[in-house]
Amino acid sequence: MEINYCFPYQIRVRYGETDQMGYCYYGNYASYLEVGRVEALRSLGSSYKSMENEGVMLPVLDLQIKYIRPAKYDDLLTIETCITRIEGSRIFFEYRILNEKNELLIKASTTLVFVSQETMKPIAPPTSFLSLFNHE
Amino acid sequence: MEINYCFPYQIRVRYGETDQMGYCYYGNYASYLEVGRVEALRSLGSSYKSMENEGVMLPVLDLQIKYIRPAKYDDLLTIETCITRIEGSRIFFEYRILNEKNELLIKASTTLVFVSQETMKPIAPPTSFLSLFNHE
Amino acid sequence: MEINYCFPYQIRVRYGETDQMGYCYYGNYASYLEVGRVEALRSLGSSYKSMENEGVMLPVLDLQIKYIRPAKYDDLLTIETCITRIEGSRIFFEYRILNEKNELLIKASTTLVFVSQETMKPIAPPTSFLSLFNHE
Amino acid sequence: MEINYCFPYQIRVRYGETDQMGYCYYGNYASYLEVGRVEALRSLGSSYKSMENEGVMLPVLDLQIKYIRPAKYDDLLTIETCITRIEGSRIFFEYRILNEKNELLIKASTTLVFVSQETMKPIAPPTSFLSLFNHE
Repeated sequence: MEINYCFPYQIRVRYGETDQMGYCYYGNYASYLEVGRVEALRSLGSSYKSMENEGVMLPVLDLQIKYIRPAKYDDLLTIETCITRIEGSRIFFEYRILNEKNELLIKASTTLVFVSQETMKPIAPPTSFLSLFNHE
Repeated sequence: MEINYCFPYQIRVRYGETDQMGYCYYGNYASYLEVGRVEALRSLGSSYKSMENEGVMLPVLDLQIKYIRPAKYDDLLTIETCITRIEGSRIFFEYRILNEKNELLIKASTTLVFVSQETMKPIAPPTSFLSLFNHE
Repeated sequence: MEINYCFPYQIRVRYGETDQMGYCYYGNYASYLEVGRVEALRSLGSSYKSMENEGVMLPVLDLQIKYIRPAKYDDLLTIETCITRIEGSRIFFEYRILNEKNELLIKASTTLVFVSQETMKPIAPPTSFLSLFNHE
Repeated sequence: MEINYCFPYQIRVRYGETDQMGYCYYGNYASYLEVGRVEALRSLGSSYKSMENEGVMLPVLDLQIKYIRPAKYDDLLTIETCITRIEGSRIFFEYRILNEKNELLIKASTTLVFVSQETMKPIAPPTSFLSLFNHE
């Protein structure tokens, strides 16, 4: 199922997220992408939290990041998160992170999988989740 | 119950733990203290992990840190963790962190509390845990 | 100099900031307090960043945290940051963190010191900084 | 230049690195990979730190991670870091992370680039660095 739902969300680089190069540490972007995902779901009227409460987990299967320009301390970043498609139990996200000058800093993608907390096996996405995209 | 069991453990400052001042970020020491606690317990033949598996949690009630000298990237630190006493359901730790030149960087203390995962209430420390200190 | 300037700022607990107890990890609050400080300064028309660019650093001398109730994943927290006073080269902050139900989760305090990047010695706060409080 | 120098290094999953799924948070592996790189360089008689002191930075250009099995709290992980090749100003790393049962948890790769701190432009690797591989 092709989706292409995108949502922008702003985040500010914290002091503790910089490293001694003076840049945002490369390892912190995975956490920013997660914020992007969570807020994209929230903007659709869904949430990670409610899914977990219903016994559905969404672990990450793979992550790719291209580091194009560094983010710096106190930069106000825009995380553009796109849900590109759902295929079986998998959901695909693509991301771009831009700074205030609209410069592209990061391109990234992740695959996540719907998993039952009970059986720890992949499952179909909850129908309540899938129905969010029919409203689009 | 006075205890004063101390244990030293070494840890190296990671790049991602520095900030743009060029120092180890002040917020990372809480995680170092936790490593100190865990390894102090392991040295006694106990573990956080086994306690959690038996339904006992050990959340932190308070934390005090004095920052004396900064740690730098790649510094090999010694975390000296002392269990100073156990009182009711509470356990008290004191810490010193030193660098390779034996300079004192950090003095800290924490109070933790034994809590039942079932009732979420404070409980007495497991007797298996208390018995570790009689072997001293 | 007594100040008592307070500023509230909201922050959401990220998934990566939880631990397997299901709570926000105790070590992450130091980073939240730093966000509180930075946003309190910004609300006054100042910034950490501009201070660093002018050769003034503000390392933390001490930190105290009381953990009263746990924050959970996706909780929208309010960090109430108060600059209580400036004394010589030192500046004192007090903090309270509350959740959406207005329950008090954390009480904390920190002391920071104005330091010259050139000499690495304590210095008086920049007059541009002090003048912010006369406008109050 | 093909290299294929590999080095194993052990690291223990910290409590603060778990999330409420009970697993090591997916965003923490980038920091583990960095530890792997640093220790691989150290094993060759080089160091990140000395390179930075000589004005050479090594920012990350891209990162790929495949998450195969989750790491859990207190797991003793082996990070196997391989420097696979150097091409112009770029250096390529591949990684595998295994647990104590020798189960494969993570496969990853990164590209880094030698950059002059002065000009902020890509440069050839320091000859002192390249000479390390001739001893192989």
